[in-house]
Parts: sequence; structure tokens; C-alpha cells
Amino acid sequence: MHDMVRPAEEAAQLLEQYCDRLPEMLDWLSQFGKDPEGGVTRLLYSDAWLEAQQALRQWMEQEGLEADFDQTGNLAGRLQGTDPSLPPVAAGSHIDTVVNGGRFDGALGVVAAALTLSYLHTAYGPPKRTLLALSLCEEEGSRFPVTYWGSGSIAGLRSWESDGHHADKDGVTLLEAAKRCGFGPDCLYRAPSLEPHAYVELHIEQGFVLERTGLQAGIVSAIVGQHRYEIQLQGEANHAGTTPMRWRKDTLAAAGQMIALTREAALREGDPLVATVGSLHASPGVSNVVAGGVTFTLDIRHPHDAVLQKFADELLQCFAQIADTEGVRFTAVERLRAAAVPMHDRIVRELEHICGERGLASNVMPSGAGHDAQMLSAICPTGMIFVPSRHGISHNPAEYTEPEALKNGFKILSDILYQFGYGSVDL
Amino acid sequence: MHDMVRPAEEAAQLLEQYCDRLPEMLDWLSQFGKDPEGGVTRLLYSDAWLEAQQALRQWMEQEGLEADFDQTGNLAGRLQGTDPSLPPVAAGSHIDTVVNGGRFDGALGVVAAALTLSYLHTAYGPPKRTLLALSLCEEEGSRFPVTYWGSGSIAGLRSWESDGHHADKDGVTLLEAAKRCGFGPDCLYRAPSLEPHAYVELHIEQGFVLERTGLQAGIVSAIVGQHRYEIQLQGEANHAGTTPMRWRKDTLAAAGQMIALTREAALREGDPLVATVGSLHASPGVSNVVAGGVTFTLDIRHPHDAVLQKFADELLQCFAQIADTEGVRFTAVERLRAAAVPMHDRIVRELEHICGERGLASNVMPSGAGHDAQMLSAICPTGMIFVPSRHGISHNPAEYTEPEALKNGFKILSDILYQFGYGSVDL
Repeated sequence: MHDMVRPAEEAAQLLEQYCDRLPEMLDWLSQFGKDPEGGVTRLLYSDAWLEAQQALRQWMEQEGLEADFDQTGNLAGRLQGTDPSLPPVAAGSHIDTVVNGGRFDGALGVVAAALTLSYLHTAYGPPKRTLLALSLCEEEGSRFPVTYWGSGSIAGLRSWESDGHHADKDGVTLLEAAKRCGFGPDCLYRAPSLEPHAYVELHIEQGFVLERTGLQAGIVSAIVGQHRYEIQLQGEANHAGTTPMRWRKDTLAAAGQMIALTREAALREGDPLVATVGSLHASPGVSNVVAGGVTFTLDIRHPHDAVLQKFADELLQCFAQIADTEGVRFTAVERLRAAAVPMHDRIVRELEHICGERGLASNVMPSGAGHDAQMLSAICPTGMIFVPSRHGISHNPAEYTEPEALKNGFKILSDILYQFGYGSVDL
Repeated sequence: MHDMVRPAEEAAQLLEQYCDRLPEMLDWLSQFGKDPEGGVTRLLYSDAWLEAQQALRQWMEQEGLEADFDQTGNLAGRLQGTDPSLPPVAAGSHIDTVVNGGRFDGALGVVAAALTLSYLHTAYGPPKRTLLALSLCEEEGSRFPVTYWGSGSIAGLRSWESDGHHADKDGVTLLEAAKRCGFGPDCLYRAPSLEPHAYVELHIEQGFVLERTGLQAGIVSAIVGQHRYEIQLQGEANHAGTTPMRWRKDTLAAAGQMIALTREAALREGDPLVATVGSLHASPGVSNVVAGGVTFTLDIRHPHDAVLQKFADELLQCFAQIADTEGVRFTAVERLRAAAVPMHDRIVRELEHICGERGLASNVMPSGAGHDAQMLSAICPTGMIFVPSRHGISHNPAEYTEPEALKNGFKILSDILYQFGYGSVDL
């Protein structure tokens, strides 16, 4: 499978050395934005964010990559290929975090990509096809009400015109904040566009399926489609003592039935469908008054849009019936609709093959969370590799993945980048 | 039935004249504490409250009653009886309101009581038994976290020692506020104790049963017993996208089932049982996280404590089963327990008789809300008369009762007070 520039044993030893560097590099990166509460907070265009990107750039250069920024602050480390006619393959993830987040979400993909390129260069010399390690500037939407700002800008799905005006909680706009860091549409860095041949992202699972099923890696089949609704119910806020049960228009009683049905219907539909009511507000919200108004959120996800649509339609129809029976008015407002994004079939099969070759227990599984790969799918084939998250914890200082699992991910990533860069894989 | 001091026709005409004064006296009283939003706000020991009590005292004196305060600020207008050996019978209600409340809640009973005594005196001269019109200082708990301060003090269920330290939202204690109005345990007014032979209260229904069933008056059988619980559920706040349904510990899904069951079980039990979940809080309360914690309130009421207890026990047992099935931890904290308070059977029958004689469509019904009568039941027989509330609205500027209904209530009240004061009713 591999064109051997170095003897296999030597390359394997080198790989282990690079693997061993991964946990310490993640620790190093976590210093930027270390939160007093024990986690990491690196919000887009904050000081900690800028320091991290600048430190990563310096490190990439030390590792032999040509590193530069684009106008949004995305950082790309380039391992120049010998054949300039071949479009580059990129790997990476996002450098920003949620408030008081963990050390692995996004960071793993960024560090692993740069380290992988360094390893491949050291082991095999320059690739035929240019390889890029991306530290994408923003994904979480944790400072401004914009998500996937980095990957979205590259994919042409975000722009200064449409998103630059969004403000953070202090009223600073995304555009202003970018400028203060030396970025923006008028700075001298290149525009964010890229035309990759493919994009591969190594990420922590942020769920506990791999852990519960005893697997070492997940190969993502698709990023699920998602519908999010706000359900609004209007009834009558009557006295809880003096209003007989049969004459009530109780929105909390109606909501209770709808929420119970949501779980029941999702269980009946079965994996991989998930449906969640995570948030509810009742009005007036006092113990001795029948709830005259309720709003709650409904979040439904599935890797196949048709299945998702059918489930959502049927569930909302049942909601309407419940509302009718309870004498309350019912409105479902669609707040978010994201189409499912399948990963490239050839990449999925290649990853399966790699895991098989390496003896790693793996499975193909959907990603229930959104990732940069879903933006970049708009412009190139994509693939994702998951490594286990302890107890599924993420967006939290307790976020954790074993060093052994980190290394497994590193090896899978380097194998597939080898195939793209030095081997025969062409999509 | 009546001992005629005046010819029947003349007394009847006089009654009509007094009846006609009732709506205008209610309007007059509503000026004290008139809220810019259109309702009435008279909080205990506020300026509006003090002005109202002082104005009422003056009016009572004008109507020929001897009026004085007790140490808590309860106002009593006395129509002295000719036989001092007979303990007095009292009628009245509370003078305070909720914030931005209506013109009738409490006010009706106060004004009607004073007006009734004035009518009886004018029509029939002094009674044998002393009659008292009470303007009780506080019932709603709308300023301090103390309810029934007026009637509770008279009944020995409230005291300066146990309740005087309670503070309002500005940190002023009940004792301090009382003193600023010239009341308190050291002032020269008499102590709040009374030893009535009976107490009768005219009040608006604050529900819409009378309106829906086309009745003109309600005769209260009992004030319902009440249990209030805070239900606390603990689960796991997992990612809504990456956590399969069967591995969740979803407290909102569990709560939904419990709330749906509450309504179902209450409907199955039937009138007059009411059970309400009015308030719910989910944590973290965001659309893309499974709710790891939920608390909600459960308010159950019934006129018979044994029925109430059995229903509550069985419902909470079902809740425990649901929690177990959903893998969440469940705690029920009892926040309030009030025993049912039956009205005096003889008073109920007398009121039924009166309504029959007057050709008023009436029914015996429980009171789903608490009233001063339930406190005073601790020291004497009590009875309550309800008149219809338009659409059941209360605690709101839109609170309304037709003048005709107000007059019906006035007539029933004066008939029963006649019986106690001038007639042969002895309990």
C-alpha cells in the first residue's frame, strides 16, 4: 500500500514518535485561553485565539510547513507537492472553543493534521499532491451568532457582507473584531477560497457510542440532517383551585403529552433517529395557575433527510391532534433546517480498509453533531474520523480522550493522507 | 321568617335601595390604590391600604356602626345587640389586594357586610345579637410572605412573634411596616382576638362554574384541602445529536409523562378533584442538550382530605415508576399541606333555604381557593356565599361581577345575618 521512501520499520518507529507527541502538543495548545474554571476558552478574534493561531503558525513553520493566514484568520500549513497540477487535500479542524470547553474539541484535528504532515514529510519526503493542515478560525458560534465562519468562508457559504454585522454580547461586530486582529476584507492576506480535492477531519466523537460498544474508531457515514422547531401553545391561565379539569385549556398538560410522544415515537422509529425537547418555558409559571402559554423546542436529527422529514411531519401532526383535544392553539415555527451531508463513499471505504489493516475495531456511524466537514462538503469530497469521548462528555473541562485513542486517530489520519499525498487515491 | 319591625313592603324597598348602593360603594373603595394599569393595588400597611381602612372606618361610623381597629389593623364595625350574653356574629372579608388586582376580591365582602348591618339597623332597629362587619387587614400574601394575617391573627394562627419578622422585597419587616401605620403589639388598639358565634363571608367565585352552569349563587360546602409538591428529577445532560434515545436519562421526557398522567388521573377521578402542574424549569434548558434536571410543581386539591391523600399517594407512586423506567432520580418535596375546612352544616342549610325562598338558582359547591373563612373556622362555625365571576377572571383588572349578582349576594347575606341577629338561628 505504501510507497516506501524509508524502510517500513523505520517509518513505523517514526510514526510512534510522532504519535507520542500528540498528547503533549494538545496540552501545549490548551494553555492558550486556559480558563480559571479548568477548561479552555478561545473565542473568535479574542486575545487567546490570536495567540493560539500565531503560536500554531510558528510551530507549523518549525515543522517544515509553509504557513499563512487568509482574510478571516484561517491558518493553513502547506506541505508542497511535486505535482502542482493535482489539487490539494486538506485536513484539520477548528481552533475556537465554547466558553469553558475542553482541550480536544477541534484542537485534536488541528494539531493532528499539522503533526501528520510533518511526519509524512520526514518519513517520505515531499508528496506528489500538496497537503494542507487547516486551523479553521471559528466553528462553534460561541462569540457571535455565526457558526462555521472559517469553513463556511472557504466554502462560499459565509461572507463579510452577509455575516460581518453580527455582534457579540458587548455589541462588537464580527467585522470590527476581525480588523482589530489584523484580519478582514481589506487586509493583505489572501481571500479564504480553496479548491481542495478532498478534506478529512479527525475529531472526538462527543458522544459515548464508541465507548459503549467498545470500538476504537468511528468512520462517519454522514453528518445528520437537523430540524429544529419552536412549538408555541396558547391556552387559558385559569385558577388552579377553582377551575374544573374538564374546562381547562392547559398548555403544560398538552405539552407533557407531546413531549412524552416525542420520546415514544423516536424510540419506535429506532436508531439513528434522535428527537429532543431540551427547553421549555411555561407562562405564567406559578404553581397555582393553569399554564396559559407554553413554548418548547423540538430538535430532530437523522442522516437521511427523507426519513427525518417524514418523522417530523407525522410528529407535528400528532401534536396538532393533542392540541385540538386539549383545546389549546398550536403553532410550530421552524427555526433551523440543515440538510444531511453524506461523507464521500470512497473515503469511507478507504477509512474502513485502513482500520482493517491496522486491526482497529471500528464502525461506520453518523455524526449527530455538526462539523466543519459539512460546510466543506459543499466544495469537495469529505470524510471524518471519530475517536472515543470518555462518557460522551464535551463542551466541558471534563472532555477527555485516552492517549491511545488519540494515537489511533493519528495513525488513521496519516494513512489516508498518505494515500492522497503519496499513493494512488484519486476521487 | 322575619320579625317585622317595618312593614314587609317597606323593608323590601329599603333593601333594594341598599342593594343599589353596593356597586357605587365598590367603585368608591376601588379608588384607594387605583393602579395606573387599571386595577387595584392595596398592599398591607401601604399608604393606599391605610387610607382605605381609615375611609372605611369613617364610612362605617356614618352608617351608624361603632368602628375600631385591632392591633394588626383589622377594622370592625359593630352593630350592638340588645342581649350582651349572645356572642357576636361577624361578616366581612379582606381589604388588601394582589398587585394590579380587581375591584371585587375581598372588597365585596367588606362593603356588603357594613352595608348589610346598616340596612338591618335601619329596617329593624338594633339586633338581639351583636353583629360585626369586618375589614380584615390582609389575606393575599402579596407584600409579605404571610397569608391570612388578619383572620389568622384573630384565630390565633398568626402572631407577631412567629410572623412579624417576615420581610417584603425591600427588606421591610411586617412588624416595622405595621408600626409605621400606628399598629403593632405595643399600640393602644385592642388585641386581635374575637370569640364569634359564627362568621359568614360573601365573596366572588374566582372561577366560572356558576357562570357555566347558569347559577346565581354558590353555597360553599368546604374549602378544599390542598397539597403542593415540588418534583425534582435528576438525569443526564447529554448531547441531543450524539446520544442515542435508548441511552438517555431525559428528565423532560420523564416529566412530560408525569404531567400527562396528572391530567389523565385527575379526569378519571372526576370532579371536584383538581390537579395542576403550573410551573416547570428544565436545566440546562437549551434546545440541543438533553435536559439533565427538571423541577416542576404539583398542586392537588379536594374537599375531602382522605380522597386527596389517596390520589396524591397513588400519583406519586406512578411518578416513581416513570422515573425508574426513564433512569432518572425522583424526589417529591412537600411544600404545602392545608387540611380541608368544611363549612358549618347548619349554615349551609340555612343558606340553601334562603336561596330557595328568594327564588335564586344556587348549588352547594366546594371553594377551590383559600379564604379568610378557613382561618376563622378554627374558632367558630363559618359559611361562605359565592356570586359569579365573569369568565372566572380574578387577580386581574378584568375581574367583574354583574350588579344584579352583587345584589343577589347582598340579599342572601342580609337574610342570614337577620336570622343570626334578629331571628332564631343558634348554632
